[in-house]
Amino acid sequence: MQLKAVTSPRWLPHALAHFDEVLIDHAHCEKKAAANALSILQAHPEVPGLPAQMARLAREEASHLAKVLQIMEARGLTLGRDGGDPYAKGLQVLVRNPAKERRLDRLLIAGIIEARSFERLELLASGLTDPALKKFYAELAKSEDGHQKLFVRLAKAVEPEDVVEARLEVLLSAEAELLEVLPLRAAVH
Amino acid sequence: MQLKAVTSPRWLPHALAHFDEVLIDHAHCEKKAAANALSILQAHPEVPGLPAQMARLAREEASHLAKVLQIMEARGLTLGRDGGDPYAKGLQVLVRNPAKERRLDRLLIAGIIEARSFERLELLASGLTDPALKKFYAELAKSEDGHQKLFVRLAKAVEPEDVVEARLEVLLSAEAELLEVLPLRAAVH
Repeated sequence: MQLKAVTSPRWLPHALAHFDEVLIDHAHCEKKAAANALSILQAHPEVPGLPAQMARLAREEASHLAKVLQIMEARGLTLGRDGGDPYAKGLQVLVRNPAKERRLDRLLIAGIIEARSFERLELLASGLTDPALKKFYAELAKSEDGHQKLFVRLAKAVEPEDVVEARLEVLLSAEAELLEVLPLRAAVH
Repeated sequence: MQLKAVTSPRWLPHALAHFDEVLIDHAHCEKKAAANALSILQAHPEVPGLPAQMARLAREEASHLAKVLQIMEARGLTLGRDGGDPYAKGLQVLVRNPAKERRLDRLLIAGIIEARSFERLELLASGLTDPALKKFYAELAKSEDGHQKLFVRLAKAVEPEDVVEARLEVLLSAEAELLEVLPLRAAVH
């Protein structure tokens, strides 16, 4: 998918200047991504192939989480409470309630979050100077790109392509507007 | 930990006779175990070492889930809705509400469920005749044994040993009573 807005050029310098905060937020993001994969599996076991794909995704996100926690530990950082993610919450309110629409929206919003994470993690990879961190973020960005494609594929497996494309357009526009109104944070989103 | 009751000798023949149902229930159990590890991480990031251990546990349970789903797929089985687990629910009502007690109880109950799963998966490994399934269940049983020890260690990291032992005694007695009243199911618990 093609996001409708690029991240503000002010984000990367801010994120690099407060990289420890970004790391902690990133751990919480991976945790929520793993939990969301299990929650989608729980809600939609009827979609062919979805349970296996969400199980593998949860394993991968939990594995990323473990690695981010390792990096944090080496820097003497502890996780602390999850302060919540206004970006993800701002998208989740767009989920419609009838069962079919709900299923489609949850898949597409998960895909959009992965697409935005891909963009941001690539920016981090480009800006970080520590070679190990640079490599880690470049690898993670690649994963996130695979995940967004997976969610779009699943969406197209449950609804006709034109319905998926039309809804994706609406959600991508809403995401671009949301980015504009949210304050800049030392966080993945 | 030492469970206070052994599984009824009627369980294994019943489980083997309805092994497909057991497999499906087992997938749901692994899903819930992964989700519970993430939920404990979310609730108690303040416990030293707990986030990293729960992240690795979630990764391992999600990996088991992916493997069980693979075995199911090879047998032409689909996951379907989670019918819920009366055993786990019967234990969860024992969680006390004040924050410290709640934390201890969640850790110990997670440990008890792992200990019971260890016993049941070992029984399955002993009773299954297919060599690949036998090996798979023997390996999984070993993991569950490691998990129950992990939860007891975490419990002893947050509360004094005598408090942990006393509460564990109470919960293990309740678990043994619960097993007696629950009907026999073609399920892990």
